[in-house]
Amino acid sequence: MTYDLSATPAAELEVRIAQLQERLRQKEVQAALIVQKTDLYYFSGTSQQGWLYVPDTGEALLMVFKEFERAKQESQLVDVIPLVSPKKIPDQLQLMGLVLPSVLGMELDVLPVNLFSQYQKIFADAKIVDVSTEIRLVRAVKSSYEIDRIRKACALSDQVALRVPELLVEGKTEVQLAGEIEAYARSLGHQGIVRMRLWGSEMFYGHLMSGSSAAVPSYLASPTGGEGVSSMIGQGAGYKKIGRNEPVLVDYVFALNGYLSDHTRIFSLGQLPDELMQAHEAMLAIQEEVKKLAVPGVLTGDLYEQMIALAEKKGYGENFMGVGDRKIRFTGHGVGLELDEFPFIAKGQTLPLAAGMVIALEPKAIFPGKGVVGIENTHLVTEQGLESLTTLDNTIRII
Amino acid sequence: MTYDLSATPAAELEVRIAQLQERLRQKEVQAALIVQKTDLYYFSGTSQQGWLYVPDTGEALLMVFKEFERAKQESQLVDVIPLVSPKKIPDQLQLMGLVLPSVLGMELDVLPVNLFSQYQKIFADAKIVDVSTEIRLVRAVKSSYEIDRIRKACALSDQVALRVPELLVEGKTEVQLAGEIEAYARSLGHQGIVRMRLWGSEMFYGHLMSGSSAAVPSYLASPTGGEGVSSMIGQGAGYKKIGRNEPVLVDYVFALNGYLSDHTRIFSLGQLPDELMQAHEAMLAIQEEVKKLAVPGVLTGDLYEQMIALAEKKGYGENFMGVGDRKIRFTGHGVGLELDEFPFIAKGQTLPLAAGMVIALEPKAIFPGKGVVGIENTHLVTEQGLESLTTLDNTIRII
Repeated sequence: MTYDLSATPAAELEVRIAQLQERLRQKEVQAALIVQKTDLYYFSGTSQQGWLYVPDTGEALLMVFKEFERAKQESQLVDVIPLVSPKKIPDQLQLMGLVLPSVLGMELDVLPVNLFSQYQKIFADAKIVDVSTEIRLVRAVKSSYEIDRIRKACALSDQVALRVPELLVEGKTEVQLAGEIEAYARSLGHQGIVRMRLWGSEMFYGHLMSGSSAAVPSYLASPTGGEGVSSMIGQGAGYKKIGRNEPVLVDYVFALNGYLSDHTRIFSLGQLPDELMQAHEAMLAIQEEVKKLAVPGVLTGDLYEQMIALAEKKGYGENFMGVGDRKIRFTGHGVGLELDEFPFIAKGQTLPLAAGMVIALEPKAIFPGKGVVGIENTHLVTEQGLESLTTLDNTIRII
Repeated sequence: MTYDLSATPAAELEVRIAQLQERLRQKEVQAALIVQKTDLYYFSGTSQQGWLYVPDTGEALLMVFKEFERAKQESQLVDVIPLVSPKKIPDQLQLMGLVLPSVLGMELDVLPVNLFSQYQKIFADAKIVDVSTEIRLVRAVKSSYEIDRIRKACALSDQVALRVPELLVEGKTEVQLAGEIEAYARSLGHQGIVRMRLWGSEMFYGHLMSGSSAAVPSYLASPTGGEGVSSMIGQGAGYKKIGRNEPVLVDYVFALNGYLSDHTRIFSLGQLPDELMQAHEAMLAIQEEVKKLAVPGVLTGDLYEQMIALAEKKGYGENFMGVGDRKIRFTGHGVGLELDEFPFIAKGQTLPLAAGMVIALEPKAIFPGKGVVGIENTHLVTEQGLESLTTLDNTIRII
């Protein structure tokens, strides 16, 4: 099976860079130096190691440490040059007739301190400020090119979930089932690595847990935790054997050519208790209501509160998104090249929704000792509300 | 299949913390605040989100944000308490009768700038210095408990490689074969996530490439690159179909309960050209010579130069560890909870080998357009030289 592996088009990169430049000018930052792998890919089309210099006006310059020939091929930017060390950046910029910035923007939300110190020495006369918010705001609204790529990832998420009933057998461990599903995903082109931006967060393919183990909380900012395989990886699938009459949560990301889809479906070998079936129906009802409410202009913090209110009204205030002090304070998140993109449908968020944002909404009900039910789909924000990009039947699949 | 999932023993944690404390005193740092996930696990036994405060003498204190009950169960430290915010750390320390440090050590090689700024505000009167080298030096020498865990991971690396001949079929894509091998690894308890410390580095299960695609260079600090599935993930297995008479490189990490084994074996459907067979034999010969040379006290930089000299003497100076300016400047690396631990067998390194270090040595020969041959095993440094912990037949497996 082959997919479109072609480079990000030049016109696409141009628009992205122009949007960033506008934000740089608003913030009075004269240039950004982009070094984080995902941002670099977004603005240049390559993940090879290098530095993308974006002045507040004019052409961006991609300087590549390793691997130059590959980056040159992958990036449709005009100015791509090799560079042996970041120490050479100022000379290189001056050689090209550029004035060195007095205020330089970098991704200070992810850049480690020791590296920052190196860049501060290299740009000794510049004040280095954080432009990660500006970058993330540009990235939050997806172009039609990006939406098309996310649609493809979404279709494959549905396809992976369709395979689950064939592989789900009583007595199989969570990790064994996970491995089989993951192998199938990989054969469809899943890139393996799922990137998260938040420092200290990590995600394998996703969360596959059964019954009580899905309700075990973890360090992760997620309504589900999971026992995991050890105290080193304290989340996700573990050695629990999957039994009958318990919800099997398959919350998997499909990562295709960089773009992600986030997706949860519930399966069960045999009937589930009414309590769980009803809670699942309630989560679906919340999803349907939110899809109409979530129009451009709505504040993401308000949308979060509306979802909480809906859950309470339906009698699931206690179980919604966790129990007691283990409740997480969000109900959805932006999805794109990273799993934790802007916007966050979370308590106190003031960012308004905009057409073209792509968000994963995950109304879930947690029943300690019993399991987790609920749904997650990846949606596009449109003028009419949310359009679901993952479309596989949302009901619990009883096998 | 079940493994020992028990917590890191208290005595083990005690020794590790005492070693760090000695280094803190030498550096005149009054305390370390450990926040990076892997270091936290190493010194406390849990990966849940929190802060480990290690004064230069006395008991360490683990403060847990999320998930407290889980961390309390996993960590065998005596002092484990819940804490809602890092802002409360100074109050908490003073409450316990501790004097706030004037010099505080943190992991500045990995800690992002914005988080550092928060900690600097919290410890407003302290100078925050980097103690990542001290932490990495403690972690570089493995205890018998750790060596035992790495041995288990190594045995599973061998077991995974033994499965390859059954799955290797002409015309299968690299990613499809990769997915199948990965599913098998996962069924044996592979934790999925493989952690690297170097910022901007990432690794899935490892590298599986065939023929020419193994010789495609990438951004990664590795002799092999790989086409990868897209320009977003510019390394590793891609969509190339595996053919006959070309080397299939299976360079996989087994990650079991945190500990890693790094391991490369070469397979081929049918005979390989003599040129590649001979180069492989030369790499094995280099490995055997280095195993005798690598005794405690030898400088890692010198060991690197010895390997280069051996490769040149055997006529592989051009192909060893890359070609032309794509050569990487190392031939091995420490392995433990992360894939890029101390020591590095690399140009200019002055760290001497010590008994108890665990290193992956990977003499490889790169032939652009043809493929990669060579070997990688995980070895324990002993007084008599290297003991290989991965023991599966090192020769090319012709199928």
